Amino acid sequence: MTSPATKPATDTVTGLMRDISGIGTDTFRGGYSRPVFSNAETELRSWFIEQASRRGLDVTTDTNGIIWAWWDTATGIRSDAVVTGSHLDSVPGGGEYDGPLGVASALVAVDILKQQGIRPRRPLAIAVFPEEEGSRFGVACLGSRLLTGALDPDTARNLKDTDGNTYADVAAANGQDPRFIGADRTTLQQLGVFVELHVEQGRGLVDLDRPVAIGSSILGHGRWKLSVHGQGNHAGTTLMNDRKDPMIAAAKIMIGIRDTASKYRDARATVGRLQPVPGGTNVIASRVDLWLDLRHPRDEVTAALVESIHLNAQVIAAEEGCTVSFGTESLSPTVHFDTGLRDRLQALLPEAPVLDTGAGHDAGVLAGHIPTAMLFVRNPTGISHSPEELVEDHDAEAGAGALADVLAGLLGEARVIG
Amino acid sequence: MTSPATKPATDTVTGLMRDISGIGTDTFRGGYSRPVFSNAETELRSWFIEQASRRGLDVTTDTNGIIWAWWDTATGIRSDAVVTGSHLDSVPGGGEYDGPLGVASALVAVDILKQQGIRPRRPLAIAVFPEEEGSRFGVACLGSRLLTGALDPDTARNLKDTDGNTYADVAAANGQDPRFIGADRTTLQQLGVFVELHVEQGRGLVDLDRPVAIGSSILGHGRWKLSVHGQGNHAGTTLMNDRKDPMIAAAKIMIGIRDTASKYRDARATVGRLQPVPGGTNVIASRVDLWLDLRHPRDEVTAALVESIHLNAQVIAAEEGCTVSFGTESLSPTVHFDTGLRDRLQALLPEAPVLDTGAGHDAGVLAGHIPTAMLFVRNPTGISHSPEELVEDHDAEAGAGALADVLAGLLGEARVIG
Repeated sequence: MTSPATKPATDTVTGLMRDISGIGTDTFRGGYSRPVFSNAETELRSWFIEQASRRGLDVTTDTNGIIWAWWDTATGIRSDAVVTGSHLDSVPGGGEYDGPLGVASALVAVDILKQQGIRPRRPLAIAVFPEEEGSRFGVACLGSRLLTGALDPDTARNLKDTDGNTYADVAAANGQDPRFIGADRTTLQQLGVFVELHVEQGRGLVDLDRPVAIGSSILGHGRWKLSVHGQGNHAGTTLMNDRKDPMIAAAKIMIGIRDTASKYRDARATVGRLQPVPGGTNVIASRVDLWLDLRHPRDEVTAALVESIHLNAQVIAAEEGCTVSFGTESLSPTVHFDTGLRDRLQALLPEAPVLDTGAGHDAGVLAGHIPTAMLFVRNPTGISHSPEELVEDHDAEAGAGALADVLAGLLGEARVIG
Repeated sequence: MTSPATKPATDTVTGLMRDISGIGTDTFRGGYSRPVFSNAETELRSWFIEQASRRGLDVTTDTNGIIWAWWDTATGIRSDAVVTGSHLDSVPGGGEYDGPLGVASALVAVDILKQQGIRPRRPLAIAVFPEEEGSRFGVACLGSRLLTGALDPDTARNLKDTDGNTYADVAAANGQDPRFIGADRTTLQQLGVFVELHVEQGRGLVDLDRPVAIGSSILGHGRWKLSVHGQGNHAGTTLMNDRKDPMIAAAKIMIGIRDTASKYRDARATVGRLQPVPGGTNVIASRVDLWLDLRHPRDEVTAALVESIHLNAQVIAAEEGCTVSFGTESLSPTVHFDTGLRDRLQALLPEAPVLDTGAGHDAGVLAGHIPTAMLFVRNPTGISHSPEELVEDHDAEAGAGALADVLAGLLGEARVIG
């Protein structure tokens, strides 16, 4: 139980974002590279802990590496909590706002609530989830999946980054005991609702000319790793007809994926990561690894599309004298957020439109366990996972204001235990 | 001037290769990764210096990082030397023999000559050339190109590895003063002929059922870097029709390259290295870099093929809403080895067939300056730049024996000045 110290002034989201704008910049790709357990992400976590502590919040890091910053009620009982927050890790060369905007907005929302003299009837917590992007170990929303038991701890421990280091080893080297990761009912049962604020990853709000939206659903999506095996050889001495070049098979597979997805409205298929092995200029590759990201609102369509892509990849590989292996790295069904909570948010934010999103979030994982909602903040470029992602200053503050309104409304409620 | 110490026994090529078989193994790719200035390549260089010194050879490393191990004549004058040797660096995940076989065979050939009691009338030198593969800084035969002035020192100093480190910085960190690299007439004018022994990178000797061949020519080849620029964006939120995905353009360009090269007999075109930027699974790439390796015996065909590929890439990129830039990294015309020297080798090795090769070598660079020849040793798989590259033990010893015969013949000759 803590009693938040009085803060002289409210920080702005813009000010907090500026504080961290120098951390994890990527001069090669542009934007930010803040993979989980990197120096940059570790520095951001320390920054958050300092910001939360400065606000008198009680900060703990759980066994899965999720940071919780608690604003307790007078009773000190952590139950039916209103939780907000997001993540601090990024994709390689990602934008400034994806993740950190939700964390900074949560801190500012707490400032606003305190300035309004609100005394919560329910505890409030700000959560920071690790490896939301899955950009280091391949599984998105790793922290929330571990918390909720959606990911087997043994599977998680054995996940490898591109340098071949396991999650277990990297976690241990960063002071997190990998023996204790996994489903955490103690923490989970403290949570009442979760509201994640996030930069919009599309142009919905631009088209509607509004700063903030309420989320309705998250498209089902998954990640698959394809390994195309061919015959490594010398680029100069091997005649074109004698080749079993997995790069050619991979190229045809990628075009096939695009053509397949383009046939179906609402399907989105991407290969953004590809690695030839060994990867020398004067070497025909022996293997090409590529990763498929596939999303569709209807899970049965996603499943059928993957099957079709897999079959097509086998035909293409065989045609090139190669073989292909196909492994699921993650698969999340379409998530429809709790309609009761959404109605409540619409009552609190009557001018906010309701939008769905194609992007995955920890909110989508938690939605299977507690009522969950999202707020989206306008992104004038519509672009994300790119340095071009943008939030205007006034929209950032509007987002924090909307989040504060939502939290204030929810904090005034207590769950009717029946 | 040195007087080689008597050696009790002749080493075998197989034995020397076994000595270094643990250095630079690549558990991820298989085979060996020994890029220039890596710990592995540095260790191999130390090994060579020790082996050469143990044979009483006088070892020096020149300003371009080429190691020279001299067996001087009684006069001590270094002129009109018979030079053999090769390189110790490898492609990523390369084979065991590409480079080191020539170095080990040179050491064993010296043992054989000494056992035969030969007292050279011309000095002999074993040369070890750095960055023959160009796998770190992108320019193949970097050492011999610097020595002969084929590569501008300023250009070399500014070459970057994938970590963004310049050749100048990496060289300096490894004790080589980058101010002094470049054309070295003093060293060059000491050389009379160069004979490089190399594992065959094809199946010519397998088909002919012979252990050793004499090289006739090296196919012209070049490397070009293509950068396809598109629009980075989120893999989940960006509809298929709204994309400018450089990975799709790159895939079509690669297929186009293969199709173009396949139309022309003797053309060999490869993309073995490709890097999407930023390279995240859930990110549409903003840029894809790929490297083209192209070879043809006729230089005018190579030039026309590159032009055709470039034009085709521009059409494909534009069709995908992308742009493509195209830069030459290296370009070497077809090299025909000195016919006088080849005739001499044929007289010394009457059973050896004459073969050409599609692979580049330092011998090809030196051929523009002094009479140069090559010996190829049978590779039963025909595969190279791959862990599957192979030389049978008896063929390795046959290769060193042939090299000793050639060197003995050449050492008995003195150039007629005038």
